[in-house]
Amino acid sequence: MINRHFFLTTLPKDKLSADHFERRETERPVPAEGEVLLRTLYMALDAASRAWMHGATYRAGLASGDLMAGMSLAEVIESRSSNLAPGDLVFTETGWQVFAVVPAQTLTKLPRIEPLSHLVSIYGVPGLTAYFGLLECGQPKPGDTVVISAAGGAVGSIAGQIARIKGCRVVGIAGGRAKCALLTAELGFDAAVDYKAGNLLEDLKSACPDGIDVYFDNTGGEVLDACLANMAQYGRIVCCRAVSQYDAGTPGAGPSGFPGQAILKSLTIRGFLLFDFLGEQERAISELSGWVNTGQIEVREDVLEGFDSLPSALVGLLAGENVGKRMVKVF
Amino acid sequence: MINRHFFLTTLPKDKLSADHFERRETERPVPAEGEVLLRTLYMALDAASRAWMHGATYRAGLASGDLMAGMSLAEVIESRSSNLAPGDLVFTETGWQVFAVVPAQTLTKLPRIEPLSHLVSIYGVPGLTAYFGLLECGQPKPGDTVVISAAGGAVGSIAGQIARIKGCRVVGIAGGRAKCALLTAELGFDAAVDYKAGNLLEDLKSACPDGIDVYFDNTGGEVLDACLANMAQYGRIVCCRAVSQYDAGTPGAGPSGFPGQAILKSLTIRGFLLFDFLGEQERAISELSGWVNTGQIEVREDVLEGFDSLPSALVGLLAGENVGKRMVKVF
Repeated sequence: MINRHFFLTTLPKDKLSADHFERRETERPVPAEGEVLLRTLYMALDAASRAWMHGATYRAGLASGDLMAGMSLAEVIESRSSNLAPGDLVFTETGWQVFAVVPAQTLTKLPRIEPLSHLVSIYGVPGLTAYFGLLECGQPKPGDTVVISAAGGAVGSIAGQIARIKGCRVVGIAGGRAKCALLTAELGFDAAVDYKAGNLLEDLKSACPDGIDVYFDNTGGEVLDACLANMAQYGRIVCCRAVSQYDAGTPGAGPSGFPGQAILKSLTIRGFLLFDFLGEQERAISELSGWVNTGQIEVREDVLEGFDSLPSALVGLLAGENVGKRMVKVF
Repeated sequence: MINRHFFLTTLPKDKLSADHFERRETERPVPAEGEVLLRTLYMALDAASRAWMHGATYRAGLASGDLMAGMSLAEVIESRSSNLAPGDLVFTETGWQVFAVVPAQTLTKLPRIEPLSHLVSIYGVPGLTAYFGLLECGQPKPGDTVVISAAGGAVGSIAGQIARIKGCRVVGIAGGRAKCALLTAELGFDAAVDYKAGNLLEDLKSACPDGIDVYFDNTGGEVLDACLANMAQYGRIVCCRAVSQYDAGTPGAGPSGFPGQAILKSLTIRGFLLFDFLGEQERAISELSGWVNTGQIEVREDVLEGFDSLPSALVGLLAGENVGKRMVKVF
């Protein structure tokens, strides 16, 4: 049987395009003792994968010629380990390929929750990131004004809905009028600000007349700077991601309001990785599924079809095409 | 009797110089009902006063033609309030003048601790800022590597010694070899890094092989950026001041490592103002005086003589001339 892969043939100097990838075919691999053969069901697309091309981050950097890295929801096809059996589901680094052989000891069996795509969105990295980032790092209180950037994205669309459940006034920042309209009409945001409209600082001020108590930052850059200028006294900033910095040759300068605004407003700023909350995931999934089942959280997903769409799916994600978690259904 | 003042005749466009001030004389003012007449004993010099010239911060901005703003340790000469009596000491905004009339209700009588200059340094704003900033915001643990910028300054020289008392390894950043030598030889720092030597990033890395657990930032700018790059996982940054940004036309770009490093290293960053710890000062002064009396803290002060030295004293402070709190003895 044939395996298919995408390789990163050249590292992008500026914006990423589909030309940086090359599709190849090889024989399907065979697992050795202690390994399992996985078949990819859904490949998760993540803006952070553009950052891996800049060098080491929370994982090793990518070099030209590498198999493109990425996480997927995958099913065990063949097992040479007592830990896992055919049919078991896992979420792991497989790279961009249809079949992958992985050491079984690195894998944890997932519950089979339907639809399976929810294991990539609300019960996966984005849902858990939104949950721990907002609640543990942001410490929102009822009545707080909570601002979320990339609010239509995988993490932002969930973080905003959790903030709403916690009794906060929620303002989303997104690109374009259509996305902003969707935030208020369908995802329960109280207000939305279009960062592409060219008047972010003032528009944010109008949307947050009492200042921002919690800012959940997915973008960094100018959006972070505008939020710094609008923070309320004793506000909290959650540094989750910096997607504005990823798809470029070198990261830009930092926000000019840091550290000045942090001092003047006695801000608490917390960066985090999901890894920091290992061991607390069961509690989070239990609470999230409660909200999903009662309809308090509307799960948005952006599912593209077919392995070959991976390069354009990532390029489009970096351009902000998606609402909710973007993933590619491979099988 | 004659009063003397310094006015800020023009706002500096770039670096501050003594030419921006003008000395004037008027009649000594007379207090009305509810007011007191104060005589300045020590004028406190602070780099933040240069920031006031950029506009509103935690206080209103300064405009050209204003009496130069500043805090001083002053003695009540004449009182028309039952709250204060002649001979009482206060620390308050008097502006740069020898005599000032102030509403008594804004004032708190200080204990008469000798030498009186200690009420401006270790028991005043710098000592309390170092105490609350390091201990409450930085949360140092024994064995932590603590880095302090502007380490020879009023706040830094005290914060470093407190960190040492708490069992930390303390690294100071200062400008010039002489100041660095003084940090290790006289103020108990374990190591010192000269930011003027041109190799800050690498020198910091050598001085902090396990990374920085707590960074107490007095400077902002490039020094903050270099520390961001050297933080340990779960490190804390205390944003106290940003003196590198004050003496310039407009603040520079922010550190390029923010928010990226904050995310990758799960950092907690806290800005604060001394005002946040109102009501806890008595406890702090009690603990600080214990350390001073047992010789665990060496109090460095930089006392200049005479009212007329105020402009050059501030210009020199911004250039980093001082070790310990700079003040001008007026009477």
